[in-house]
Amino acid sequence: MRVLGIDPGLTRCGVGVVEGVPGRPCKLIAYYVVYTEPDDDIALRLLHLDKSLADLLAEHKPQSVAVERVFSQHNVRTVMGTAQASGVAILAGARLGLPVQTYTPSEVKAAVTGSGTAGKTQVTSMVTRLLNLDAPPRPADAADALALAICHIWRGGTRARIEAAAHAAARNIRGARR
Amino acid sequence: MRVLGIDPGLTRCGVGVVEGVPGRPCKLIAYYVVYTEPDDDIALRLLHLDKSLADLLAEHKPQSVAVERVFSQHNVRTVMGTAQASGVAILAGARLGLPVQTYTPSEVKAAVTGSGTAGKTQVTSMVTRLLNLDAPPRPADAADALALAICHIWRGGTRARIEAAAHAAARNIRGARR
Repeated sequence: MRVLGIDPGLTRCGVGVVEGVPGRPCKLIAYYVVYTEPDDDIALRLLHLDKSLADLLAEHKPQSVAVERVFSQHNVRTVMGTAQASGVAILAGARLGLPVQTYTPSEVKAAVTGSGTAGKTQVTSMVTRLLNLDAPPRPADAADALALAICHIWRGGTRARIEAAAHAAARNIRGARR
Repeated sequence: MRVLGIDPGLTRCGVGVVEGVPGRPCKLIAYYVVYTEPDDDIALRLLHLDKSLADLLAEHKPQSVAVERVFSQHNVRTVMGTAQASGVAILAGARLGLPVQTYTPSEVKAAVTGSGTAGKTQVTSMVTRLLNLDAPPRPADAADALALAICHIWRGGTRARIEAAAHAAARNIRGARR
């Protein structure tokens, strides 16, 4: 499964493309940071972000998209821009008919470090190890996007196992009734 | 000038289309509220909003788009959805190459009622009067979108006069130097 992770932001938006299956090491395909100029008009900035994400989705053809969920606890001055960018990011995937899943920062941290309260350095360090990279991805926005993609692949596996178990249980019940 | 105003929201997004020139009564063309289901997936909701706004822009062919600016002072529980919807709304106009202008709620209130702290009832009442309607537009989200469009037409006039004055002044200065 190929997943494109997006760490939404208006000034810097991290994008990470990872391939893998649940419970196995993942493979780095590519990572990017999309920048927009803080002095530019908001319409131009969102348009540039939309175009860049559409280009990267067309280039990498992921099977699904993972986007970080934005919370209002963040920096109040920038949170509105981040939320607008996340709307554009989710829409970019949805418009192509791709499944889009959102994850909270703690879900992502827990998935890659085992702790929902891990710091940025720990997340970057685990992403570097899990993708078997020679050096940490830079800037950190890219590491967060890669962590999102890894989180999606692994949690997708958990979901798939739960669904399979539920189906098996349903089959057993039907079997018992016959 | 034909303006499409958008009062962004995820559950209810108001859209108002108004025609007019600065300093003259405006004419109502149409108004709508785009609804999305709170229980639906965020990706589906943003996709439905995007599609609906694209359809309305294609139908009414406005010369510009006015979108209400979102503030974090709003209800924290819904503000993230509102910001995501505003990102999609701004993008919808920008993608068509239309000028998109954002206005704060106080700018809109001041433009239609003369007071930046006017209540919803007062805004609806002035929109009804300014557009010469028999009854207030319902629901209120539509009235807010119409107020945005009126605000844009009138303030556009102010901007145009200021720019004209500035040009005239520049011409005068150049003239004096010759």
